[in-house]
Amino acid sequence: MATAPSVSYSITVRLEVPASGTAVSELTTAVESSGGSVTGLDVTASGHDALRIDVTIAATSTAHADEIVTRLRGIEGVEIGKVSDRTFLMHLGGKIEMSAKHPIRNRDELSMIYTPGVARVCMAIANNPDDARRLTIKRNSVAVVTDGSAVLGLGNIGPKAALPVMEGKAALFKRFAGIDAWPLCLDTQDTDEIVAVVKAIAPGFAGINLEDISAPRCFEIEARLREALDIPVFHDDQHGTAIVVLAALTNALRVVGKNIEDLRVVMSGAGAAGTAILKLLIAAGVKHAVVADIHGVVHHDREDLVDADPESPLCWIANNTNPENATGSLKEAVVGADLFIGVSAPNVLDGADVAAMADGAIVFALANPDPEVDPAVARRTAAVVATGRSDFPNQINNVLVFPGVFRGLLDAQSRTVNTEMMLAAARALADVVGADEINANYIIPSVFNEKVAGAVAGAVAGAAKAEGVTVGHSTPAPVQ
Amino acid sequence: MATAPSVSYSITVRLEVPASGTAVSELTTAVESSGGSVTGLDVTASGHDALRIDVTIAATSTAHADEIVTRLRGIEGVEIGKVSDRTFLMHLGGKIEMSAKHPIRNRDELSMIYTPGVARVCMAIANNPDDARRLTIKRNSVAVVTDGSAVLGLGNIGPKAALPVMEGKAALFKRFAGIDAWPLCLDTQDTDEIVAVVKAIAPGFAGINLEDISAPRCFEIEARLREALDIPVFHDDQHGTAIVVLAALTNALRVVGKNIEDLRVVMSGAGAAGTAILKLLIAAGVKHAVVADIHGVVHHDREDLVDADPESPLCWIANNTNPENATGSLKEAVVGADLFIGVSAPNVLDGADVAAMADGAIVFALANPDPEVDPAVARRTAAVVATGRSDFPNQINNVLVFPGVFRGLLDAQSRTVNTEMMLAAARALADVVGADEINANYIIPSVFNEKVAGAVAGAVAGAAKAEGVTVGHSTPAPVQ
Repeated sequence: MATAPSVSYSITVRLEVPASGTAVSELTTAVESSGGSVTGLDVTASGHDALRIDVTIAATSTAHADEIVTRLRGIEGVEIGKVSDRTFLMHLGGKIEMSAKHPIRNRDELSMIYTPGVARVCMAIANNPDDARRLTIKRNSVAVVTDGSAVLGLGNIGPKAALPVMEGKAALFKRFAGIDAWPLCLDTQDTDEIVAVVKAIAPGFAGINLEDISAPRCFEIEARLREALDIPVFHDDQHGTAIVVLAALTNALRVVGKNIEDLRVVMSGAGAAGTAILKLLIAAGVKHAVVADIHGVVHHDREDLVDADPESPLCWIANNTNPENATGSLKEAVVGADLFIGVSAPNVLDGADVAAMADGAIVFALANPDPEVDPAVARRTAAVVATGRSDFPNQINNVLVFPGVFRGLLDAQSRTVNTEMMLAAARALADVVGADEINANYIIPSVFNEKVAGAVAGAVAGAAKAEGVTVGHSTPAPVQ
Repeated sequence: MATAPSVSYSITVRLEVPASGTAVSELTTAVESSGGSVTGLDVTASGHDALRIDVTIAATSTAHADEIVTRLRGIEGVEIGKVSDRTFLMHLGGKIEMSAKHPIRNRDELSMIYTPGVARVCMAIANNPDDARRLTIKRNSVAVVTDGSAVLGLGNIGPKAALPVMEGKAALFKRFAGIDAWPLCLDTQDTDEIVAVVKAIAPGFAGINLEDISAPRCFEIEARLREALDIPVFHDDQHGTAIVVLAALTNALRVVGKNIEDLRVVMSGAGAAGTAILKLLIAAGVKHAVVADIHGVVHHDREDLVDADPESPLCWIANNTNPENATGSLKEAVVGADLFIGVSAPNVLDGADVAAMADGAIVFALANPDPEVDPAVARRTAAVVATGRSDFPNQINNVLVFPGVFRGLLDAQSRTVNTEMMLAAARALADVVGADEINANYIIPSVFNEKVAGAVAGAVAGAAKAEGVTVGHSTPAPVQ
């Protein structure tokens, strides 16, 4: 799959060219004939003899950007100055900041925001701890917690290198749901320590978003924290993905006219995301699923499962899928399937595999940046195709989910997040696509669709309240 | 000491009064004859027969505010509506928030702030971890960490009730030094756990401000974190107080014309602040100090010290003060002293005690809100008097110190904070008061003096660089 020039590989080249002659027009030609795209051209200084120009160029990769600069350098009369990378420029000094809500202009304001006035507010909370949700940042704050062990597709790059992703996540929380999130990148990958740290920092937050923690530790960390804390704990890589997949599936089924109970589902990938998707699909009605990982189809008699810990995620999959105890490869499993979900690796299927699926086949090939099967090829025979990429229709993107889910949890002051709320979130997200809009290329709304976060938040808050798991609800539950 | 009405006990009373008659003027009279002060009177609605008015009133306490409302209720024709507390109103929803620095308006911006563009920034940091100081929030972020065990004068009120103080601190960090601070209020008071938590969260911060952690745990927590981390760890209750005391003392000595080496110092209080003040004064040249706590003067043969842990703070005091091994009470010790420093309890001295001090006596009575001796009484015989209160001259306030200290540490990318930097901070703060300004009632600048933070920051950054403890400095030190 050829990649188009992207602003995420965008550079700004400052250069000087002779005022006369054809150098300026040659610039654009050189960029475009190199496969780049000029997205801006600003003359920043002009004299009798020379022009100083900032040219902003989208490339397909860092190497491609270097190649374009070399090409520009070859134009007669052009002198290349500073080359800036727009993405890096946006990261200088970080992407988020802390702001005070009130000015502190004089001693009166100081005496209310800090001592001595603040003491009365402290005592009010000491006397009624639930007032922390009214009188402090707790109400609207989420900790974005990672150990840097499974960052994007980059792997175990550690806490400092994970920080730009967590800052970006925090920025998205604010942009799409008005939530104050702060990143905590932990200098430990020990399960017990991570659990202890998150328990310790919990009093100042109304929710915990776990992020980019590798499997299988992420399962245990999440389960133990949910048990221990009175605020919701949500591992976005698992549940955010599961919710958006279920929403997309809901609309894909509307397009092909099938029922979820009748589907034959084949999944490639048995990691954190795959397991969470599977659990949510089963909760939504899926009866027949088969999962394959790098060793082929997961079944009870597979060599690596015979002696496995019965509590392991893979054993859970074996116990809850593959009712016919099928064996063999992924390619064998997809024959006749109604739905393929890939959360694994690039190019594990080809066009023939997709063609062998059932009529009205649905393909969700979510590996990023290169899907399990080329979506253009899959679309030749499949009825609906979705990917994780922004340059194809039907992008399965967690940004559609986590802001609204947390907005709903915080609005309801929920003490937990559970399957009912996730199902409600998926239904609400699916329903943002109206009956008059839905088609094979539009099963999921854009991340910039302004209805999304509110719809998801309302559904989640409603489910939380209906289940009586919110602060102050009459059904008693341990409140910190 | 009578307390004046304060905005930190300020209420806004919504009421209706008849449009004709004297009710409006009676309002102000009633408030003032009750000892309150009308700070605002807004007519929010007006009709033929009645006016709706919001009256803002400063009182001296919550009880006093209630009393004033009762008095207003007694005026004929006045109907009292909602009574709001201005300090509580400012705390609704918390005092700080997270903001994104860049807009996310379209897919291009999203692709640079988040995936896929962010991946390149992550990899740059993975390849060179020091780049986290350039490309993330780490450079300008400070964690404000407490366990809620010694909050203001309120004691062990726990992490949630401590949050308003920590938010206020974060707001002050931003207001006075442009620093992004986020509060972490810990649900543990175990020394080992606190150390583990702070070590774990350190990668995303360039400094740790410990706050309101009770002694003696605060000493061990700080010492272990300084040893473990490559970013500065500063316990403001100790070192912030010590720096501002030394700065005030520096100028008080200029007023009375004495040298620090010649001083006879008597201190009341052997807690965290007292110990830190003592250490910094000794580093600055003090040779003769005596410390008294609730059991009297600290000396080697005192019953509670004979079997004490030789590593304990009290043994450190016994070993480093009281060269003549004096015994007895605080009142006996202050006879003939040049400097009294109180960081203990209200009213432990009276006017006669201060009168018995040496000529040109200096009294720093810092217990809050009620000092060790009434400052008005002390001033009858002492040459210079300072307190922690904002309603007397010479307020010893940590807000003068911690923003500038951290600004300097962050600007220099310092890996630690040490005594040399604290001495430099104190000198710089003292020197903000010019030779033409200094007098017995002006030994320390106002917290709103705009020169303060910059002067302190410059001195601290200079000291950090001079000692070679900054990131990238040629003297190698373990860099995370």
